[in-house]
This record gives sequence, structure tokens and C-alpha cells, in this order.
Amino acid sequence: MRRKIFLRLDPPKVLVYGFGVIILLGTLLLSLPSSTVDGKGLPFLDALFTATSATCVTGLVVVDTGDTFTRFGEMVILSMIQIGGLGFMSFATLFAFILGKRISFKERLIIQESLNNATVEGIVRLVKRIFLFTAVVEITGGTILSMRFSEEMAAGKAIYFGFFHAVSNFNNAGFDLMGSFKGLTEYAEDPIVNITMISLISLGGIGFIVMNELFEYRSTKTISLHSKIVLAISGVLIFGGALLIFILEYNNPSTLKPLTMTGKIFGAIYQAVTPRTAGSNTLNIPDLQQSTLFLIICLMFVGASPGSTGGGIKTTTFAVLIGAVKSQIRGQEDVTFFGRRMEQSIISKSLTVTLIALFLVFTITMILTITESGKDFLMIFFETVSAFSTVGLSMGLTPELSSIGKILITITMFAGRVGPLTLAFAVTKKKKENHYRYPAGKVMIG
Amino acid sequence: MRRKIFLRLDPPKVLVYGFGVIILLGTLLLSLPSSTVDGKGLPFLDALFTATSATCVTGLVVVDTGDTFTRFGEMVILSMIQIGGLGFMSFATLFAFILGKRISFKERLIIQESLNNATVEGIVRLVKRIFLFTAVVEITGGTILSMRFSEEMAAGKAIYFGFFHAVSNFNNAGFDLMGSFKGLTEYAEDPIVNITMISLISLGGIGFIVMNELFEYRSTKTISLHSKIVLAISGVLIFGGALLIFILEYNNPSTLKPLTMTGKIFGAIYQAVTPRTAGSNTLNIPDLQQSTLFLIICLMFVGASPGSTGGGIKTTTFAVLIGAVKSQIRGQEDVTFFGRRMEQSIISKSLTVTLIALFLVFTITMILTITESGKDFLMIFFETVSAFSTVGLSMGLTPELSSIGKILITITMFAGRVGPLTLAFAVTKKKKENHYRYPAGKVMIG
Ligand SMILES: [K+]
Ligand SMILES: [K+]
Repeated sequence: MRRKIFLRLDPPKVLVYGFGVIILLGTLLLSLPSSTVDGKGLPFLDALFTATSATCVTGLVVVDTGDTFTRFGEMVILSMIQIGGLGFMSFATLFAFILGKRISFKERLIIQESLNNATVEGIVRLVKRIFLFTAVVEITGGTILSMRFSEEMAAGKAIYFGFFHAVSNFNNAGFDLMGSFKGLTEYAEDPIVNITMISLISLGGIGFIVMNELFEYRSTKTISLHSKIVLAISGVLIFGGALLIFILEYNNPSTLKPLTMTGKIFGAIYQAVTPRTAGSNTLNIPDLQQSTLFLIICLMFVGASPGSTGGGIKTTTFAVLIGAVKSQIRGQEDVTFFGRRMEQSIISKSLTVTLIALFLVFTITMILTITESGKDFLMIFFETVSAFSTVGLSMGLTPELSSIGKILITITMFAGRVGPLTLAFAVTKKKKENHYRYPAGKVMIG
Repeated sequence: MRRKIFLRLDPPKVLVYGFGVIILLGTLLLSLPSSTVDGKGLPFLDALFTATSATCVTGLVVVDTGDTFTRFGEMVILSMIQIGGLGFMSFATLFAFILGKRISFKERLIIQESLNNATVEGIVRLVKRIFLFTAVVEITGGTILSMRFSEEMAAGKAIYFGFFHAVSNFNNAGFDLMGSFKGLTEYAEDPIVNITMISLISLGGIGFIVMNELFEYRSTKTISLHSKIVLAISGVLIFGGALLIFILEYNNPSTLKPLTMTGKIFGAIYQAVTPRTAGSNTLNIPDLQQSTLFLIICLMFVGASPGSTGGGIKTTTFAVLIGAVKSQIRGQEDVTFFGRRMEQSIISKSLTVTLIALFLVFTITMILTITESGKDFLMIFFETVSAFSTVGLSMGLTPELSSIGKILITITMFAGRVGPLTLAFAVTKKKKENHYRYPAGKVMIG
């Protein structure tokens, strides 16, 4: 009975309308004269773009955040990031736990008891836990960053900067206050900034379920299959990506070459972590080699893990597809990970999510090559994948987008944020009963 | 017993070694002084590239065919095209019919009787039929083209040109003798050349099985599921593609704008047909809009139909994936086409072929962005997909490739030609018996 009350809300609609309302409210606030330093307020399209980018924790910016906004404007953006990030993480986790019974991991989780029934109390308890985690991580990160920034700015500004960047990075939002679109490039070699940021991004990107299991590991001594896959794939993507970036950029005088060896290693790791899908950067993105940029496009497309603040097709989806191909080639009947078999429904779902993502990215890219006709293809492709996966890295196209381009990227950010989850929900719905099945037919493949 | 004799040959090995031997022989012949007009013979790497391109019926050229080679050299190339095209088509058809019992369509086909048992006689009969079809189509096309070319050149040259281009286009090889890398651009508005070429390419690209059914339709009145899917998808790709190209290029002064309305329509259709995967062109490829070029990349990746002279992941693979996504979203249990259900093994095979193709294309593209560092990304991406799908269209990168680049594209052409079929064979092998299955595990997707 109580369960029905919750289900009546129709989760995908709540998600879409909820995000829509927050974006519109944000657009309104950013249009106010008190939001911008020039006292004019942001033009409508730019305000809509910025509000969407903040709420969807993307981080693509048509105007530089630090240069353009007043403290009030910045706080509006930060609020949207926090609401968007927390809201999405809670929603995605709740969805996995409660609404999508078939993909829950409750049997192995510590919070199992409280969630065994999808009661209002259970939901409240889970959300509370997510909020608590977020607060602890953001306060820890914010304090460390504040102390580091206080070395070079007044205490008040240092605390403000520290917490803004901690919240922005834990929520994988990619907004920064450094000015002139330069991101964190001045801190490319700084160990405290690097380690703190990389930790915040990684924690936000692996998702609440995995975070929770890691924090509870000392008492539980068990790690779920889901968490094992997330940690393994995240590890491979980060260290494999960092190694490649290190090699590709080692001799690039605009990126790694002038840095110390420690700086080079930090630079490579940071730029391998940020596509999962933080969007902040310590190297200047347009200066990277074409090969590195294409690698980052691929990493961005995979993105973060489910139930996190990040976007993309997700690490688990990627893992399942790799596993499916591997077992096909080996002629094995089942797709297995860590001694567990994937059900066919999970493989089909991974395929659907990936193909729809590819279709969306390719279609938007094609339309943008028409509307932004003078621009380089790689720049457009990079921007589209970044928007879809809510990454926020850019080769510099964002501020130069045409009006149609801004609208298209706004739609892509929104679709990339709410789309995959809504889609996952749709394809998890109870299958229609087929009264009869068609006879099997055959075709040649490949 | 007789069946075993054939199977002992290990089809994928026959394919790989067979193509390898022909390519090496061709490389040798093209290196001979009598092959090139400058009397020096082609340098080894260029000869290897050209021989691979011809044998794999790709059509990428590091040197212009018409300008560089003597009649002898051209005949070597034409022979490789004919052997490669016929060999692959026969092999792929035989494979589907006889070796891969599970994906055969024999129940609906006219040649059913003769092929019911995989006897040597059956195989010989099928290959004979394929040769006969090829001869009829090439002689018809060659005659029409010869008559057309005789309007502007001496009879001997006209016949030679007519037959060379008929063979090259039916085999989807993309080689031409027009000189200066200009392809068939001088015939962009010519109805006879357009209609003949488009027919040759289309017949070669839909595959022997479909061709056979179409020719026999008057007596059989049945069309197999395979042929229905091939014809439907080919139709959508050609007419959808042509419509988009028509719109995108309508105002492009370097392509469609100066042409008459008939010329515009032919130009759009030709450039939509050639990615399936002929490689000849009537519009100058580098002059096309970025959006058109990206569209052509997508069309090339899909490519031709199985058991044809063309490459790519194949129209049926594309259809099955689209169908799988559609049924997932609709919550239907089965993937159905024309009242027939696809078995899970076919869907898995489509997924495997597509993901491996994507992986190969992305990896080669990434390496080429390193080796060809000064070149535009789109140009490199276009070249890689063209090589993988054995298309042969180029934005002009081929003659400017570095030595490593030439080797990489040579490998990609070879892998793109023999890879998918070998792969398809590998994944069609009898699955290993699993003595036990792992218990099912679950992960979050999307
Ligand atoms: K982001
Ligand atoms: K070709």
C-alpha cells in the first residue's frame, strides 16, 4: 500500500520535471542583474545554457564563471550543482535499490534491512545516508582545499574557493572560479590540489553504492559484484588512460613537457580521471595532441559509474559489452565476471543504452557540423560527447557556439543527464506478455 | 566423409593465406619495371598497398591508377580485383550456405537441392553459378559503358575503359583510370554512366544470395527473410542517404550547386550508393560539407550486405541491432522482422561484429592521429573507416600517408576484408560444453 504511493509518482517524470523546474528557476535567477558583475544579468539563452550545465552537473560554460558572475550568481550556480548532483545520485540509487527490484544488490549490502521493503521510511533513511556521505566528503575536501588556497589568497576567499571547488568536483560538475576559461591549469603540479581533486572526482564518480561498501568494508568484509566491476573498470580506465596520456603528451611543449616528473604524472592522471566525468582540467585542453583528444572522447563516452554524480554510458555497461564480446569469441555460453554470470536482460540493456547513446551523439554531431559549419570536426565531436556524458571539457567551442548550437548542446546535456536513467527505467519495466511468438528466422551476419 | 575433406581445409586459414598469397604475388608484379609508365616499377610499400587495396577490393590509392601504370600494370590490378571480389563473394556465400549450417537459408532457396549436402559437387555447382552471374553482369555493364565511352575515345580504349570500370564497380573495388585522382567527376551528370555504375555497385553490394533470389523471383515468387532485410535496409540507406546529401550539398558551389536538377539527383544518389562500399565517386570528396563527410563515414561503417563483394559491418548486422534496440524499448521479448523472430545467437553475433569493428576503427584512428600528426582528424577518421569497410573513398589522405601510415592502412584493409568473415566463422563454431554454469550476478546499467 505504502509502496504504491511512491510508485504513483512515476519516477522518470519526476526526474524530467524536477530537473526542468530547477533549470527554469536557475535561468530566471541568472538573468537577474544582481547575478552578473556587469549588472545586466545573463541573456536568456546563455542563462538557460548555464543553468542546464549546472543542474546537469556538466560544466560546459558559454561565459567564464569566475569572470562573469557576482557572488550571488556563483551561489546560484553552486546551489544548482548541489541540487542536481545530490538529486541525481539519490534518484539513481533509489531507482536501482527500490524501484528497479530486478537490478538491486540488497542481498549484499549493509543497508539491506532498512531497504527490504520500499517504505517511505526506507527511502528517507537511504537519502539521509547519501546526504551524510556527501556532506562528510565535501567538508573534508573543502577544508583541505581552503587551507591550500589560503596560502595565496585572503582567508575568506580561500574558504569560499575551497568549498566551491570541493562541491563542484565531488558532484562532477566541472565549474571553476579561476577566470579566463583557464580551469585549474595553474595547479597542474600542485600535489595537494591534485590529490584532493582526484579523490573528490573519483569518489563522486564511482557512485554511492560502491562508496558505501568501501566505507563499510572494515566491518562487512564483502564487496558486491557490482562494486568489483566498477572498481576494476575504473582502475583500468584511469591507469590505462593516464599511461597513454603520459606517453602521448610527454614531448608536447604546451602540456607535459615543461612540467617536472611529478607534475607530468599528476597531469596525466588528472586528465585521465576528469573524463569520468568531472570536467575540470589542469592541462589546457585545446593544446593536447589530436590523439589524446580522441582518447579523451572515448573515455568520456564510457563515463562514470551508475548511481553516481557522473554521466556517460557507465563503466558497468562498458564492462558487460566487453564481456559479451569476449565470451562470444571464446565460444562460451555465458558472460561471466568474478565467478558470476550476467543474465541476458543485462546484456540487452547494455546494448540498448550504448546504441542509443551512439545514435544520439552521432546525430547531434552531424547537425552541429551543419550549424557550426566553420568549426573543426574534432572540436564539434568532442563538445557533443562532453555534453552528452555531462563531462564539461571543451576544446573551446562552447563560448563560440551559434544560437542553434547553444540550444542543441543544452538539449544534449539534458538528454545525457536524464535520458539514460529514464531509458534504463523504461527497459526495466515488466515486459508485455506475448500471446504468441513468431517463428525463428535467420540472417547472415558480418 | 566427403564433407570432412572440405572442412579439413579450415576456411578462415584458407581465406587469410589465399588473400595473402595473391597480395604478395601482386606486389611483386607491380614492382616490375614494366608495370609503371616511368619504367621503374612501384616502390615496395606502394606496391604492397596497391596490391592489398586491389585484392581486398578497397580502392584506396597512393598513386593514381590511370597516370601511373602501364596497361600491364592495370591488368595486374584488374586481375587482383576480379580474383579478390569473386573469391570473397564465393567464399562468403559458401560459408553461409555450407560451412555455417546454422545461418543457412537453404529452406527457401532455389538452389536448395544442390546444396542440401555439402558435397564437393554442390560446392562446385554453387561457385559456377556465382561465376556465371558475375560474367553476365560484368559483360552487360562493360558493353553499355564501352558504348558510352566510345563517344569520346577510340573504340579500343573505350572497350578497355568500359570493361575495366564495369569489373571494378561490380566488385565494389573503386579503382578507376580517369587520372589525376579525379575519379568519375567528369560524368557527374551523365545518365548512362550514373545508371550503369549505380546498378553495378548495387548488384555487387547486395550479395549473391539476394541477386540469385531476385533473378529467380519470376519462377519462385518467394523472397527469403534475409533478402527482405537486405533490400529494405539497402533501400533506406540509399534513399535516406541520397535525400540528406541532396539537402546538405544543394548550395555547395564545389559539388551540387553548379549541376542541373538531374545532375544534382544523380550526384546525391551516386554518393549515397558508393559508401555501400564501392568507393568510386562522381563528386570531389574533399569538397563535400563536413556534415556530408560524417554521414558518409556512418554509411561506410554499415557497408554492404553479406555474401557480397562489399565490406563494412553489413546491412543485416545493422538491421538486427536496430531491431534489438527497438524491441528493448518497447518491452517486447523478441526481435522480429517481417513476422520472423531473430534468435539470441544472431543478436549476440551482430553485437560482437559491431563492437570489434568499432574497436578496430577507433584504435587505428587513434594511432594514425599520432603517426599523421599534422593531418585533420576528420580526414584520418574518414580514411580509417574507408579502409576498414573496403570502400576506397578518401578525403585525400592516402597519397600523403607516412610509411607507418601506409602500413597501418594496408593492415586495416586486410583486416577489414578477411576479419569480419573469419570472426563470424569463429563465433559460429560449436560452443564449448559448459560443465557447470556460474550463478547469476547483477549489475546496474546506464
Ligand atoms: K561534469
Ligand atoms: K571498394
